[in-house]
Amino acid sequence: MRRTFHSGLDEISGALVEMSHQVGEMMDRATAALLDADVTGAERVISQDAAVDDLYRRTEERAYDLLARHQPVAGDLRTIVTSLNGVADLERMGDLAVHVAKITRLRYPRSAVPGELTGTMREMGRVASRIAAKTSQVLAGDDPDARVTLAREIAVDDDAMDALHRRLFVVLLDGSWPHGVEAAIDITLLGRFYERFADHAVSVAERVVYLVTGERPEAPKGRHGAHVEVT
Amino acid sequence: MRRTFHSGLDEISGALVEMSHQVGEMMDRATAALLDADVTGAERVISQDAAVDDLYRRTEERAYDLLARHQPVAGDLRTIVTSLNGVADLERMGDLAVHVAKITRLRYPRSAVPGELTGTMREMGRVASRIAAKTSQVLAGDDPDARVTLAREIAVDDDAMDALHRRLFVVLLDGSWPHGVEAAIDITLLGRFYERFADHAVSVAERVVYLVTGERPEAPKGRHGAHVEVT
Repeated sequence: MRRTFHSGLDEISGALVEMSHQVGEMMDRATAALLDADVTGAERVISQDAAVDDLYRRTEERAYDLLARHQPVAGDLRTIVTSLNGVADLERMGDLAVHVAKITRLRYPRSAVPGELTGTMREMGRVASRIAAKTSQVLAGDDPDARVTLAREIAVDDDAMDALHRRLFVVLLDGSWPHGVEAAIDITLLGRFYERFADHAVSVAERVVYLVTGERPEAPKGRHGAHVEVT
Repeated sequence: MRRTFHSGLDEISGALVEMSHQVGEMMDRATAALLDADVTGAERVISQDAAVDDLYRRTEERAYDLLARHQPVAGDLRTIVTSLNGVADLERMGDLAVHVAKITRLRYPRSAVPGELTGTMREMGRVASRIAAKTSQVLAGDDPDARVTLAREIAVDDDAMDALHRRLFVVLLDGSWPHGVEAAIDITLLGRFYERFADHAVSVAERVVYLVTGERPEAPKGRHGAHVEVT
């Protein structure tokens, strides 16, 4: 029974790593499609989400099944609970990549991103990619210190994402935005999607660190609640 | 020990109901402040969030404590896991009310909502209020059938929210928007905050229904991932 239980835990842990790879790849592809106004690439991201949702569902079921059939001790229990929270965040990250792809599809054959913001959006995509890769490493790793270090790096990357997000608003609001309301809405939503993608990754990493070190990350507002002021 | 455990469960359950009341009240106040350009009301919402965050933190700790000190059986375990997911959603709903309040504060003494959208935003506030109240009832109730009925009503209310959200974009994009880019950004973000508030409530209600009936609500994409297309 212990063997079954631990192989169940390993399966869940593997699913989390796999989901983090998939949503990272989805956001990479969504960014590329956005910048190239590539509707085929965007469609591919949208299709890819079904596999992530399916993995989410199966992993959640697996976790509930383990809870129902075994009486895991406290540490294992906390692992399962952390995993349940983690899959929900990762599923949401996949949705956010889909949201980016849908804006690309909606504006095709035009680009949703005006020339002067291409650089900023590309950089937001790069930061998202880095954050997703580090989140995978946090999930796959087994050295607590390395995981803590990675989680701190993710927090720094998240600050960089927030700074890029603010930069979008500076451009939108400098008084000479020539692209109209529709483009402003697209950029506002895109900025929000990348920022939330990063926030969910921070949340996954912080919970894993809490699990392995017992050290509680900072207040929920500090990270997850951050609203970039529209100044 | 069972008594301690069950009083712990009751405490967690009470905290969820209390959080749902608080975030509902916050969103009500945030809507009133938004429509009246009332910076004092907005500040009050922003301050109120600390209590919600605190309750969130304490409830999460309490849940982990119960997991660590007892070996709850499957049903109780699932209750705790559902509660952990629930408090995270409710905490986020509080953040979204704060986001609305911050836009009010940022634009004060002007209103962030142009006259022609006041009715739609007021209606979004009413739907959010209704959804929050029903979520409280789902959390506080003990009749499974009544809870299922309420969860279905919340799903219908959420569809109404999505329709209102779409209406915002119709007004923004009808080609004669006279209020400039800044107001368009505010409305875009406000729309998103109300829509997400509703989505999180749907998520709480669905999980409670899953807990009490074993019936899995529909695919995660159907509700939580819904992106209102900017057409």
